[in-house]
Amino acid sequence: MARDLLRNIIVEIPSIPGNFAKVATVIGELGGEIGDIKTIKMGTMSTVRDISVTCSSKVVLEQIVEGMKNAGEGIDILAVSDDVMHAHEGGKIHMTSRVDVRSLADLRRVYTPGVANVCLEIEKNPDKARYFTSIGNSVAIVTDGSAILGLGNIGPVAGMPVMEGKAVLFDQFVGISGVPILLNTSDPDEVVETVKHIHQSFGAILLEDIGSPHCFEIEERLKKELQIPVMHDDQHGTAVVTLAAALNACRAAGVDLKNAVVGQIGLGAAGLAISRMMMEYGVKEMWGTDRQEEATNRLREYGGTVLNSVEEIMEKCDIVIATTGVEGLIKPEMVREGQVILALSNPNPEIQPKEALKAGAAYAADGRLVNNVLGFPGIFRGVLNAGASAITYPMMIAAAEAIVSSTKQGDLVPHPLDPSVHQMVAHAVERVALSNHS
Amino acid sequence: MARDLLRNIIVEIPSIPGNFAKVATVIGELGGEIGDIKTIKMGTMSTVRDISVTCSSKVVLEQIVEGMKNAGEGIDILAVSDDVMHAHEGGKIHMTSRVDVRSLADLRRVYTPGVANVCLEIEKNPDKARYFTSIGNSVAIVTDGSAILGLGNIGPVAGMPVMEGKAVLFDQFVGISGVPILLNTSDPDEVVETVKHIHQSFGAILLEDIGSPHCFEIEERLKKELQIPVMHDDQHGTAVVTLAAALNACRAAGVDLKNAVVGQIGLGAAGLAISRMMMEYGVKEMWGTDRQEEATNRLREYGGTVLNSVEEIMEKCDIVIATTGVEGLIKPEMVREGQVILALSNPNPEIQPKEALKAGAAYAADGRLVNNVLGFPGIFRGVLNAGASAITYPMMIAAAEAIVSSTKQGDLVPHPLDPSVHQMVAHAVERVALSNHS
Repeated sequence: MARDLLRNIIVEIPSIPGNFAKVATVIGELGGEIGDIKTIKMGTMSTVRDISVTCSSKVVLEQIVEGMKNAGEGIDILAVSDDVMHAHEGGKIHMTSRVDVRSLADLRRVYTPGVANVCLEIEKNPDKARYFTSIGNSVAIVTDGSAILGLGNIGPVAGMPVMEGKAVLFDQFVGISGVPILLNTSDPDEVVETVKHIHQSFGAILLEDIGSPHCFEIEERLKKELQIPVMHDDQHGTAVVTLAAALNACRAAGVDLKNAVVGQIGLGAAGLAISRMMMEYGVKEMWGTDRQEEATNRLREYGGTVLNSVEEIMEKCDIVIATTGVEGLIKPEMVREGQVILALSNPNPEIQPKEALKAGAAYAADGRLVNNVLGFPGIFRGVLNAGASAITYPMMIAAAEAIVSSTKQGDLVPHPLDPSVHQMVAHAVERVALSNHS
Repeated sequence: MARDLLRNIIVEIPSIPGNFAKVATVIGELGGEIGDIKTIKMGTMSTVRDISVTCSSKVVLEQIVEGMKNAGEGIDILAVSDDVMHAHEGGKIHMTSRVDVRSLADLRRVYTPGVANVCLEIEKNPDKARYFTSIGNSVAIVTDGSAILGLGNIGPVAGMPVMEGKAVLFDQFVGISGVPILLNTSDPDEVVETVKHIHQSFGAILLEDIGSPHCFEIEERLKKELQIPVMHDDQHGTAVVTLAAALNACRAAGVDLKNAVVGQIGLGAAGLAISRMMMEYGVKEMWGTDRQEEATNRLREYGGTVLNSVEEIMEKCDIVIATTGVEGLIKPEMVREGQVILALSNPNPEIQPKEALKAGAAYAADGRLVNNVLGFPGIFRGVLNAGASAITYPMMIAAAEAIVSSTKQGDLVPHPLDPSVHQMVAHAVERVALSNHS
């Protein structure tokens, strides 16, 4: 009998001798093979264990779960998780001590009374907090949960796995200490006040998965009122990586981005930020369209030109970027000979690259590879290294160019796990930040 | 020549070949011996290194520091730290990934697109956030910096080394992820609003080094308005450890605490909380004194009796606890035969234990050993294990009793690095919390 279904069953078992054996017996009797067993919580009254079970089918799995529940009083199945869920169990991050406390001397050094000297030193010279605390290496990852991935307003707690994911990438790629902050308010005044009140804990603020339109106001106000870098990743992180992808696409198609007519379909948080980034980069003709007047007004405010329809964009632009979330919005018959098309909506693009190429596009790509992961870690590492007080367009453009120069010939963007990309981005950002100082 | 002065010199050196050699040469020429060299920041324009230097005297050290500064253009000495300062360099904590991202499959599992399933699972069953995020294992360590140790209102950033110290102890003693939150406001309304807006990020809130009297209002309101445990350590953590010390002192002196007359000198945050804890424990005659009427009114509110002077307390009480910060406040001639005296102010007690014993006390101790470290880690581990929504008096009294039962015969309190104390406290708290559930 093939046992190819692997699940992790998280079970709470009252701490009574023999109870665990009952559970193990039931699993075996019902045809499950026990693999790794991890203790998640060793409590007084009960123990929570994560048991890997392999079995032959979902039906058998359900029988096993049912059998476990009935194996003894108070036994409770807390979750059954697959491989993906399993990777998130217990959370993906932990605030870890960088010092060892093994003796009273250690305790007196890192805690009282020794710590008082360090406090007084920082009180005298606040700049020293950079060297004697973790503040200068920490970034708050702030969300209100109103636009988690493409899932919408699912709330900040349900969004936590994404925030933890960002913290994982911060730690692994660039050694930054990322701290998720979940806000139970989306009111711009309250968000701004709250972040202002806690900002001294951190060296910079990453705004994450905050919905449009309040993301615009929140970011603008925080940038103005705080003396540390603030960036909304869904706007500018996306725009940095998109600019890099567009530059690579143009290179492949033999098009000069600055002198091309660029069209943006969809002017939400990402689309507007991409348009602004293009103009800051030097694109002179930046056209955009959106069904919402509020969105097109914003583009106009920043100096772009509004067109009335997707058809018009497709007709007039050399390079088209789409971030609408609408699958198949771009029809093959709209594609112009020699056009560069980046249809970035995930998981289903506005037009499949193959279709676009068949219809005459010089270059076409979807958004599967255009991942924010390429931008934010290096950008924040760079500004923290430089002690910069803001993330500026010249820094972000330098980041995009660093991504371009890390891209292998023929690729749209570099491999996100290539550690040199993040180092290159960090160095580029730091260099610009420091040149502004002097 | 004896070289017994060891210092760490943190120096920023422009990234130009040969620059570091110049610095090293100067150190040697001026009589310094180079030990460990750590790279703190490897920047584009400059590198920050931490160089251990041993030399013969402070005069020589100053010459070395001066010489290093002049060794080349742009060389900057950022700090010179001793052994204690050195332990705090770069901060004492870091948000660490608990998962490895080594392949695209890993990335797709812990980040997009895999993470979306986890988010949706939590959206459906919010309780699952306990298993699939770090929230249930995280405690915010919140301060406004208004009462850092005995240093007073030095501000939250200067207080950060203490908050990091607490996070270190959380991690090392009980595996909790402690996240410092520095508030740039002391206004009770703003503090309460801010903590309320961010509380969903955490499983519990530890209020730390917040001054009296606003600490009372802040804690009360947060306890009332939040569904997660909130505890001000300088009140209740101190009170738990003091109750344990008092129980041990009474045992040594052969006194029954519940039937004794207990006097509290000084009714600040700690003193008031100790008085309340005593009454909750079962002390029937709880008397206290303070120079401030506001403070004595608070004791009356909670059911204690106010006396007018230190002399009166000393005259009438079997057990006296002092937390005034005033060295030598208790004169030997005030001590009554057979009294138990805990003069807890640090570093200088209200009366030296030796003097008190000489004057007739049955038992006397100062506050050097009565360290909060014994309380908060286990208390929070216990409530997080139980999923409790508050820290109650029965839990805190159980914590104090666990500390008592971990104390070696003849000691006032257990050794704070004995890991079994923290486990005992956690189990005691968890047991009470779970018995309330059922």
